[in-house]
Amino acid sequence: MRGTEKLKQSIIENFGTPCPVIDLDIVEKNIKRAQRLCDEKGLGNRPHIKTHKSPILAKMQIASGAKGITCQKLGEAEVMVDAGITDIIIATNILGASRSGRLAALQKRIGLKVCADNPVSIGAYSEAAHTAERVMDVMIECDTGQKRAGVETPSEAIALAQIIKDDPMLNFAGLLFYPPCDGWVRTQGFWNQTKAGLESLELSAKIVSTGGTPNFQNIGQLDGATEHRAGTCIFNDLMMINAGVAGLEDCAFQVFTSVVSRGGWNRGILDAGSKTLTSDQFGLEGFGRLLEHPNAVIERFAEEHGFLNLSKCQNEPQVGDIVRVIPNHVCVAVNMVDQLIAIRGDEIVDIIPVTARGKLV
Amino acid sequence: MRGTEKLKQSIIENFGTPCPVIDLDIVEKNIKRAQRLCDEKGLGNRPHIKTHKSPILAKMQIASGAKGITCQKLGEAEVMVDAGITDIIIATNILGASRSGRLAALQKRIGLKVCADNPVSIGAYSEAAHTAERVMDVMIECDTGQKRAGVETPSEAIALAQIIKDDPMLNFAGLLFYPPCDGWVRTQGFWNQTKAGLESLELSAKIVSTGGTPNFQNIGQLDGATEHRAGTCIFNDLMMINAGVAGLEDCAFQVFTSVVSRGGWNRGILDAGSKTLTSDQFGLEGFGRLLEHPNAVIERFAEEHGFLNLSKCQNEPQVGDIVRVIPNHVCVAVNMVDQLIAIRGDEIVDIIPVTARGKLV
Repeated sequence: MRGTEKLKQSIIENFGTPCPVIDLDIVEKNIKRAQRLCDEKGLGNRPHIKTHKSPILAKMQIASGAKGITCQKLGEAEVMVDAGITDIIIATNILGASRSGRLAALQKRIGLKVCADNPVSIGAYSEAAHTAERVMDVMIECDTGQKRAGVETPSEAIALAQIIKDDPMLNFAGLLFYPPCDGWVRTQGFWNQTKAGLESLELSAKIVSTGGTPNFQNIGQLDGATEHRAGTCIFNDLMMINAGVAGLEDCAFQVFTSVVSRGGWNRGILDAGSKTLTSDQFGLEGFGRLLEHPNAVIERFAEEHGFLNLSKCQNEPQVGDIVRVIPNHVCVAVNMVDQLIAIRGDEIVDIIPVTARGKLV
Repeated sequence: MRGTEKLKQSIIENFGTPCPVIDLDIVEKNIKRAQRLCDEKGLGNRPHIKTHKSPILAKMQIASGAKGITCQKLGEAEVMVDAGITDIIIATNILGASRSGRLAALQKRIGLKVCADNPVSIGAYSEAAHTAERVMDVMIECDTGQKRAGVETPSEAIALAQIIKDDPMLNFAGLLFYPPCDGWVRTQGFWNQTKAGLESLELSAKIVSTGGTPNFQNIGQLDGATEHRAGTCIFNDLMMINAGVAGLEDCAFQVFTSVVSRGGWNRGILDAGSKTLTSDQFGLEGFGRLLEHPNAVIERFAEEHGFLNLSKCQNEPQVGDIVRVIPNHVCVAVNMVDQLIAIRGDEIVDIIPVTARGKLV
């Protein structure tokens, strides 16, 4: 991002600080890169919209070649369907929304692809499909080492596939993986065994999905995969730099923030705190990087303040300076705000609503 | 909170999960307690609305005897002024909003009380007051050990008071303290010295404000204090329990969440993650307490999942169960959501918008 004084003035005069900004030139470059990585391996690209939560940006991804999108919440999917997007995987067990009737209501509008790792979720999907009078595609989420959601053995996956097969309102649609970066060999073993089991049930997995921006380094390594879903890569952040899949120049999202106080020669205070940048740390030093002062450390937060340790700075920021911060974790930072200010070079060009922000269910 | 199965059913059928809920009976009890603590010490009560961000709840506090409110952001103050509240301290250096013209615009509508710990902020206030053609009340923020914002010596405070005195568009209104729980003696010394210096300038502090719910244990200990501002006490949370100023029965805010997966005998997965409960930890074990399973530990988060360690549970939650979570830090958790579901006993009685959520500037 070419952050000139002119741009900073224009941001603060029009919006004040802190102000969440995205550079559309970098966004476009990042979208093309994800598409190219998938194309090169013959994989469908199904970006996860949890990072941007914006139908405008989802449509840019689809225009660039994405076959559909991934959502994490039913509320996100509702927003995307409202905007005309219809090929959607919801990549989680949906219980809270199914019992509220909203899953059935959305299934009536489009045929969703949902995920399960247990019979209770499958039962909820069956009920929603009955209510919607429309067969629902169900994928099985598999855990090959992350210890997040997902069945942990091929035999569990096959048992769930059998339940789906036996239900006339459900259609077995495939498998969802999020392999650990060092777990792709194990994932291949899991898939091979599961595939054999599915064949004995006369089932085949139309979709075999891998996930994660950190897995850009492994993309295409699973023989049998049909598509990849990555979210963070549209903006990138310090976690992705730390994972080795992005550089500072690939970070499209920055928070413009004012230095509002100093508190001594080695301290400084920003007007962005945990309610803007969030407390996500993931083992990184501090809570974000200041582009203008790479040796400054955001040591801790109050809700609306970031406390800088400037001991290692040659050239300390002064009260009134505007500085730009790349967050540790962009997905949660974007989730704090209702809109993103879009720039190209030094010009403000658009305001993009984070339409699916706050969709808890 | 009397969480019956009936209430849980009603929450999930009407809203799904995760769902942020406040118990109005507890809220009212907490509001009365804060007022009583201030009344007993002859202090004005000026609650900090950063915790609830709701004009409806701010007006309940005023109806209960609060003399005005405290805000942390100009955007929060704008929302409160729109709702008819006019006695407002903004308890921070306001640079980002003053340069956008919004400070002057709000000053034109009501006479604000703003805070500064440096001459740059005071300069910005002077400019805004000129633009608004209305004298602005300025308080000096003093740091007596928290190492947050605030001047660190009485002489700095007095020097800033002189600058304010010399500016015809500014009025010196007093001092703002947030003493550490063990720093009230030091704060008394700071205030005594500052008071003498102010007298030599022929100034007096109309407002001497102390702050913090954790300081309920010290309220009234500063001779010369005129009012107290506390935020978290309206809802309370695990941090306040840990600080010894609240019990579990005083926690008005809970997230109703579904167990959506298990992943083995000693694991469980909630549909509330860092985008709902936030990563704020403050040295506590885990990321929230499950009322139904006090021995379950929310060990880590994904954005939309909470990962439970159930090793110490006698009676593990099952997939499909609805459980209630008290967060570590309620102020940031409320800031994630657009509305709070209000209950009394087992009945849903209202939906309260978090109107000032997302007001970054």
